[in-house]
Amino acid sequence: MRNKIRRILQYSFIAIFVVSLCSAANAADPLPSWNDGTAKEAILKFVTTVTDKSSKDYVEPAKRIATFDNDGTLWVEYPMYTQVLFAFDRVKKLAPQHPEWKTKQPFKALLAGDMKTVAASGMKGVAELVMASHAGMTGDEFEQEVSKWFTTNKNTHLDRLYKECIYQPQLELLAYLRANEFKTFIVSGGGIQFMRPMTMKAYGIPPWQVVGSSIVSKFEIKDGKPELVRMPKIDFVDDKAGKPVGIYEHIGVRPILAFGNSDSDMQMIQYAKGGEGRRLGLFVHHTDAEREYAYDRKSHVGTLDKALDQAAANDWIIVDMKKDWKQVFPAK
Amino acid sequence: MRNKIRRILQYSFIAIFVVSLCSAANAADPLPSWNDGTAKEAILKFVTTVTDKSSKDYVEPAKRIATFDNDGTLWVEYPMYTQVLFAFDRVKKLAPQHPEWKTKQPFKALLAGDMKTVAASGMKGVAELVMASHAGMTGDEFEQEVSKWFTTNKNTHLDRLYKECIYQPQLELLAYLRANEFKTFIVSGGGIQFMRPMTMKAYGIPPWQVVGSSIVSKFEIKDGKPELVRMPKIDFVDDKAGKPVGIYEHIGVRPILAFGNSDSDMQMIQYAKGGEGRRLGLFVHHTDAEREYAYDRKSHVGTLDKALDQAAANDWIIVDMKKDWKQVFPAK
Repeated sequence: MRNKIRRILQYSFIAIFVVSLCSAANAADPLPSWNDGTAKEAILKFVTTVTDKSSKDYVEPAKRIATFDNDGTLWVEYPMYTQVLFAFDRVKKLAPQHPEWKTKQPFKALLAGDMKTVAASGMKGVAELVMASHAGMTGDEFEQEVSKWFTTNKNTHLDRLYKECIYQPQLELLAYLRANEFKTFIVSGGGIQFMRPMTMKAYGIPPWQVVGSSIVSKFEIKDGKPELVRMPKIDFVDDKAGKPVGIYEHIGVRPILAFGNSDSDMQMIQYAKGGEGRRLGLFVHHTDAEREYAYDRKSHVGTLDKALDQAAANDWIIVDMKKDWKQVFPAK
Repeated sequence: MRNKIRRILQYSFIAIFVVSLCSAANAADPLPSWNDGTAKEAILKFVTTVTDKSSKDYVEPAKRIATFDNDGTLWVEYPMYTQVLFAFDRVKKLAPQHPEWKTKQPFKALLAGDMKTVAASGMKGVAELVMASHAGMTGDEFEQEVSKWFTTNKNTHLDRLYKECIYQPQLELLAYLRANEFKTFIVSGGGIQFMRPMTMKAYGIPPWQVVGSSIVSKFEIKDGKPELVRMPKIDFVDDKAGKPVGIYEHIGVRPILAFGNSDSDMQMIQYAKGGEGRRLGLFVHHTDAEREYAYDRKSHVGTLDKALDQAAANDWIIVDMKKDWKQVFPAK
């Protein structure tokens, strides 16, 4: 009996010890890769306030919606959007089945490695390359192609797979928000079906919490199998003023927190901040040429110009990567 | 010391007792409003199998997607879709601001209570009424209008608010699926923003798990406030072959269970059943003139005709409301 009691008491102490450890972990800094400063303080203050039942700014969990841009906000977009690189690779792979590309621009230039001519073809040219590489197959086939590409293709400058060029401070922020009963969504100008194969593993965001641009798809019975077939036609552009529209259609709740990194995210952040009660809007400012890249007003991707000028007047938080982020990428 | 031990042991016994009680509750019938029969058996067998790690048909939680039609599957659609009744009411309410409706059909007929002429205007006429009553306001205003309407408008035949004309067996099924780590979605031909104000309270389904038809919306700064403005133009029809498209765009995962009640749900169910592994497709058959309504092949709403003919060959489960449902509506 004595031994039994001792054992019960021992277990109790162990249990108490484990519980204390957990509490200590909770009490610890939830954003260890963020340096102390305005941005971190604003985030902590915001989350503490909207989850405090005694606060006039309390927000019930069902309304705790946070939306994040993807390119340049959750993962690297510089010097070129990952999806465009995927499109380039895929056009090269499909070229043997398309002899007509040998004489058709910008395909001809891309296949010859003449990136200057590709760039000169502008958004119209790039859109043609994206269309040719994203359509003409079923949804399942596209998912497989994208998943395969993600397993082997690297950003050589950073020496990481593209799907691993994600920001450690943002991973912590996403986890912190979810621990506080937020639902976290991606709202990106990128292709919705291009992102979905990687968002769960990379960010803990399931496919149905990803909003993005899309091409038209069509239901067909193909070789006796019911499939979605991807068509070479733009359906929806989830960028700039399209972002609030994408949020309204896909989420149906106005976010209370929105995070972007370029002028294309301004409307999403205006929409989020336009609701009643306390709201938070943030932009990543890429200032770190050493650990990542430095670009803003004049950049060909992720242009951050007007938003920088209007930030103070609108109470938007500018997150300075160099200053605010202790660590940029997850440890390898 | 002796007392302390006794107390610790007592607490342990209480804890064990409580845990046993919970297990007993789990072991109880999860679908008490479903009569024993083919349908109930098929559901229980399916859920047990796909959640059994030792089964070759095991499905990981992230892929446990269930989609439900709304009109006629989760709530009453007869003798007229709830959303159309809302549109009629709203046109009447807005009439003083639209003197032109006095001479314009089908508005004139509706305002005069001449429902025969309204019906004769067909889908085109009804679409005009829906447009006029659903557009020309912000998303927030529309949500308020719908929410208000839901609090007072009744199906007099059933003597229930429309938002409470929901099927008890389906509420149990939704809860049972969620308890087994399914994500439950609505995929309806009804308006996405019309349904959203009621789906969480009625079914436990949050706004972002509702897929439906939509009109175009546009982001605008209106009186200094960033808003979505609803435009009188169809954006997407989430019906028939549109349902798999809506699923692909909004959810991004092929469902393993799909539940409908009319020929308009056939494509959704084909798509769900077309994936690998074990799948379940079901239709509600409205056979109960006494407790609800009886209609199928010749009905003007929720026509169930081809699906009845093709059910056996496709292994679709036909749920016979009269025979399979012990109770149709929740207790008041």
